[in-house]
Amino acid sequence: MRDSEPGSSLRGAGTAVAEFSKPASQASEVSHDLTRKLARFIISSGFDDLPETVRHEGSRTLLNWAGCAIGGSRHETMTKAMAALSPFFGPGQATLFGRPERVDVLHAALLNGIGSHVLDFDDTHIETAIHPAAPVAPVILALAEHRSVSGRDLMAALVIGIETELRIGMAVTPAHYKVGWHITGTAGVFGSAAAAGKLLGLSERQMCWGLGLAAAQPVGLQEMFGSMTKSFHPGRAAQNGLTAALLAHKGYTASEHGLEAKRGWLNVLSTACNTAAITSTGWEILNNSYKPFACGLVVHPVIDGCIRLRNENGLAADMIDRIEVAVHPRVMEVTSIRNPRTGLEGKFSVYHAAAVAVGEGAGGERQFSDEAVRATAIAQLRARVSATIDPGLGKAQARVAIVLKNGDRLALFVEHAVGSVQNPMSDSMLEDKFRGLSDGILPSGQTDRLIDLCWGAAKLADAGEIARNAASA
Amino acid sequence: MRDSEPGSSLRGAGTAVAEFSKPASQASEVSHDLTRKLARFIISSGFDDLPETVRHEGSRTLLNWAGCAIGGSRHETMTKAMAALSPFFGPGQATLFGRPERVDVLHAALLNGIGSHVLDFDDTHIETAIHPAAPVAPVILALAEHRSVSGRDLMAALVIGIETELRIGMAVTPAHYKVGWHITGTAGVFGSAAAAGKLLGLSERQMCWGLGLAAAQPVGLQEMFGSMTKSFHPGRAAQNGLTAALLAHKGYTASEHGLEAKRGWLNVLSTACNTAAITSTGWEILNNSYKPFACGLVVHPVIDGCIRLRNENGLAADMIDRIEVAVHPRVMEVTSIRNPRTGLEGKFSVYHAAAVAVGEGAGGERQFSDEAVRATAIAQLRARVSATIDPGLGKAQARVAIVLKNGDRLALFVEHAVGSVQNPMSDSMLEDKFRGLSDGILPSGQTDRLIDLCWGAAKLADAGEIARNAASA
Repeated sequence: MRDSEPGSSLRGAGTAVAEFSKPASQASEVSHDLTRKLARFIISSGFDDLPETVRHEGSRTLLNWAGCAIGGSRHETMTKAMAALSPFFGPGQATLFGRPERVDVLHAALLNGIGSHVLDFDDTHIETAIHPAAPVAPVILALAEHRSVSGRDLMAALVIGIETELRIGMAVTPAHYKVGWHITGTAGVFGSAAAAGKLLGLSERQMCWGLGLAAAQPVGLQEMFGSMTKSFHPGRAAQNGLTAALLAHKGYTASEHGLEAKRGWLNVLSTACNTAAITSTGWEILNNSYKPFACGLVVHPVIDGCIRLRNENGLAADMIDRIEVAVHPRVMEVTSIRNPRTGLEGKFSVYHAAAVAVGEGAGGERQFSDEAVRATAIAQLRARVSATIDPGLGKAQARVAIVLKNGDRLALFVEHAVGSVQNPMSDSMLEDKFRGLSDGILPSGQTDRLIDLCWGAAKLADAGEIARNAASA
Repeated sequence: MRDSEPGSSLRGAGTAVAEFSKPASQASEVSHDLTRKLARFIISSGFDDLPETVRHEGSRTLLNWAGCAIGGSRHETMTKAMAALSPFFGPGQATLFGRPERVDVLHAALLNGIGSHVLDFDDTHIETAIHPAAPVAPVILALAEHRSVSGRDLMAALVIGIETELRIGMAVTPAHYKVGWHITGTAGVFGSAAAAGKLLGLSERQMCWGLGLAAAQPVGLQEMFGSMTKSFHPGRAAQNGLTAALLAHKGYTASEHGLEAKRGWLNVLSTACNTAAITSTGWEILNNSYKPFACGLVVHPVIDGCIRLRNENGLAADMIDRIEVAVHPRVMEVTSIRNPRTGLEGKFSVYHAAAVAVGEGAGGERQFSDEAVRATAIAQLRARVSATIDPGLGKAQARVAIVLKNGDRLALFVEHAVGSVQNPMSDSMLEDKFRGLSDGILPSGQTDRLIDLCWGAAKLADAGEIARNAASA
């Protein structure tokens, strides 16, 4: 997350145009064929062009996404969306992860997008604050059930879709976010359109149209944070980008300069732009990160330190006199609830976070449930946690100390919390996270099979197998 | 359309917030309960609250919209959208105006919205440049086939939906348009959500959520003008607002301050705002206008003057030596094509516009077809048209002179072209326009019945009759 800076003036504020002013706007300051260059990159990059590290990160992203989608599938946000939209569902073409219903591909993109973000447990690209998988994965997994899609093509679409949204996100970071947009939804439409466009086999010109149709449909205001509409954003972005690609595939035209034109996406939705990010040759997916704990990133260093002290010293709750944490000032701005009453409030309590980490050695959805918050053992530990602010600490850092009843004092400095890019979750940690999210929703044999399918996705002749194996009975 | 002004600084550019910052943003400069006030107006205003002049304007808007939807129903933009999306259609719940297919309510909103704008012949609120009916009418007409809706409720939803989008549009005019947004799609989502919310019987709080969900889904960049995506904008706005209302109806939450909050719609999508427009007690629908001619408004004064001279003097093409028009500078900026080769180019030719007006006494879709542009008789008249710029003329004015072969010179000054708010189309002119658009698509008996249904909509027990009567065989 980014700090405040004074707002700059709005670059795109040009002259209004008549309703029938001529097509083909000319780019002003940026490359006049930026959209075309990006379209060319999207359609020409195949699985063989992906370095092994990139392929593996794609698999990790897929696995993490699928677990989050299953874990969120029973959330009331999902059931309300289903209740509202089910009268309009088309043919049962695609799976809803973790649920028994089958719906049309467009609604699958929307609903799986909502479900995968609703726990706020999905992947995060720290620099842009984009959650990369949620707008992209639901689209390609649903299309793979509807059309013939190989595992290699699926993985290439996933990676290139994510690259597309992250490059556009990097180009407008931090200005675009500061305006108030929820970038996962506003940049996410491009990732979805790119990934779907690859699977539909769009020509370069059609891909330009697809990006243009995506540009016209940004989704997401930060004002919606704290409501169900936050997870609607990536879901709708998935559906919008898919719609854009489907229309472009049938020759539905858009401007071929949707990004760079004076009244295109970059100028209208951001106050500043670094277009070089869009034609970068690096792989931004390598900077994707995965949350080990089911709460905001800001409190992860504390949880990480507490779990390590607990495990390294074989601590049990009854050995502990008190827990002392020192944190970056931001932590106390957003997680200072002393006595949380609900699971959601627990996510905004550094005291609760430290208590479950020491008491249970974990920080999953279960540790942030209403039951966990109300459990006596946790409440007793929580009362023994003290927190102090240390402005010298970085946002990803914390100092944690546990004083035992025998007088011993165990202390730890967390430099990079687990789950950060510098200290990533291991593959087996991702599997454990997946199992925790799937537990109680899919049988363990099915969970194991789905984990294998995600790791081995690129070897599948029919990538539709993944989603079909994610349905509940 | 508005003139250029220097861009002002972006008001909404505040601090970025953490991913889980707390809900309920506080409004900064504007009323902290603006969204709630608007929601209250929307749900509490019924047909009995509408003055007779407003009711009648609603009927005129409905009639004009229905004709445009039927006239656009066979356009390739529609057939391409149908081809792309038909695999995903849900149950056949609603009519596509002018077509035989029935589709689910959500797709009917999208497709009828596209079809009604594709000819650029629909209604226009001049001050905001919003086309009011296209995002609203498709939604309520489709809902009226799916649920029980009385004619009175339909007409109240149409008027209040239009008021909602126009008030929000007035609040951000001209700043929002200058940024590059296509306001029909960006403000239109609110009109759609309001109208659908009324028919669904949303509570005040649900209507706040519906407006919030709409705020998160603006559609439309001016860069798309000249492509099929321009008419996608009102169609998608219709579908998005409908989706917002459906979700809110089932308790899907959004911020209740989606308009006024620091990172809400007004601040994020505009550089300036006059919120008093949103709580205005006037009726903006009374400033709605209807196009008599199937081309951009800028050339309407010339067509109007030419038709009047022709009809008042019983002119025939072979009597004419030359046609001289004097126009506002803007006319020659956008309609200066001397020798158009297609119907679309004809719309950008003041020469062609004057020629068909004098030669055929009309300016409908037929006069701007490929055939009309290529017709020898029209081409001969077109070659006799000269145009000069007169900076002293207003945008809605023109001077037209026709010099006859016998030496007579007939001249006319057009102060307010027909179709302007000051010189509106009469009800019978609207009927003639409807018949021209429906001709060749619906049988004349059905056309007559549909005209009667539109004029008498408020008397219908079942408002679904209107759309059911608009299907082609």
